[in-house]
Amino acid sequence: MSKKVAVILAGCGVYDGSEIHEAVVTLLSLDRAGAQVQCLAPNVAQMHVINHATGEVAEGESRNVLVEAARIARGHVADIANAKAEDYDAVIVPGGFGAAKNLSDFAVKGPELTVNPDVLAFTRAMQEQGKVIGLMCIAPVISAAIFGNGVSCTIGNDPDTAAAVSQTGAEHMNCAVDEIVVDDARKLVTTPAYMLAGSIAEAASGIEKLVDKVLSLA
Amino acid sequence: MSKKVAVILAGCGVYDGSEIHEAVVTLLSLDRAGAQVQCLAPNVAQMHVINHATGEVAEGESRNVLVEAARIARGHVADIANAKAEDYDAVIVPGGFGAAKNLSDFAVKGPELTVNPDVLAFTRAMQEQGKVIGLMCIAPVISAAIFGNGVSCTIGNDPDTAAAVSQTGAEHMNCAVDEIVVDDARKLVTTPAYMLAGSIAEAASGIEKLVDKVLSLA
Repeated sequence: MSKKVAVILAGCGVYDGSEIHEAVVTLLSLDRAGAQVQCLAPNVAQMHVINHATGEVAEGESRNVLVEAARIARGHVADIANAKAEDYDAVIVPGGFGAAKNLSDFAVKGPELTVNPDVLAFTRAMQEQGKVIGLMCIAPVISAAIFGNGVSCTIGNDPDTAAAVSQTGAEHMNCAVDEIVVDDARKLVTTPAYMLAGSIAEAASGIEKLVDKVLSLA
Repeated sequence: MSKKVAVILAGCGVYDGSEIHEAVVTLLSLDRAGAQVQCLAPNVAQMHVINHATGEVAEGESRNVLVEAARIARGHVADIANAKAEDYDAVIVPGGFGAAKNLSDFAVKGPELTVNPDVLAFTRAMQEQGKVIGLMCIAPVISAAIFGNGVSCTIGNDPDTAAAVSQTGAEHMNCAVDEIVVDDARKLVTTPAYMLAGSIAEAASGIEKLVDKVLSLA
């Protein structure tokens, strides 16, 4: 029977939303494996809008996380506030700054981060029901918020970010771009993706392993 | 030696820009094949902005095609007005309504379409230099504008759209989602992608064939 997988999106674009390549490679890998996918997003304003051509904040502009996520999902995205963990076997969160700006406030508060309440409620419910969770790129900064202290995860090998992850209570493991870190007891799978990748093919090598592992554990 | 391929983007999102899955699968396939990729876009306002969660026009909003394309390109996108055909071996245009709203005005004018002058100048220069051109989804509506009458291409099998393509002067060939149409004499490769695809894996099956064929002809 095909697995039901939620993919949590954080907008649409690496600097203020979900990293688009990571999100699309995740959707492609899940579809090729025969999974049923539902994209979810919080129905909140983005922290800000970044002009991706210049890297600068677009002053005065405002965009909604769910509405922008719908671009990646071709319209098919649901409000995570209404999502029920019992409807899914697994959940995957692609990276991009949106995971640290919209799903959580790690970009501003570092290890003192808080997670969007609807995202936290859904992912904690998944964890409590023994479902599988996959986090990539910068998204593993929310690992300890979901699982508590001692959970193993990776954001690659950047010393400052790894130290911040350790300060959240998680155990950071250095990891190559084409590899994954698995916390078997907690059913958490993480991979560095664009925290380390120099190209989309590099990012895809780890993301495909993450998707395979998530589905095999689900 | 690795092939240099331009990818022309039309914004970021199926309803008012480039179809994101098609664009990303193209970039992934090109990267895996060892091609050097440069994303290009016209530096013009989008025809309009569509709220992808509701499908409705976002009244009063305006976005720039190149700035939004930079989301897919992770910032690395150049103005097509400055692009030189001699720098590339091939060019690929993903679909999405942006190809019919921003790169051309097919969505408004049908077979009487005009093509953005910078897009037309670049693609015609590529054609004149014997370079390879790949168009997917709805983008093949610009085939006759580039190559003139009699060029063979596909937009899948939708009767009305196929009739409109024929009225532009092109010869439309029906094509399955996992297949390509090749005009060998003109070095044009087309595939239906989301004109027919019911899933990202279906779209990818044809896009990967298109990328392979484009690179083999280049």
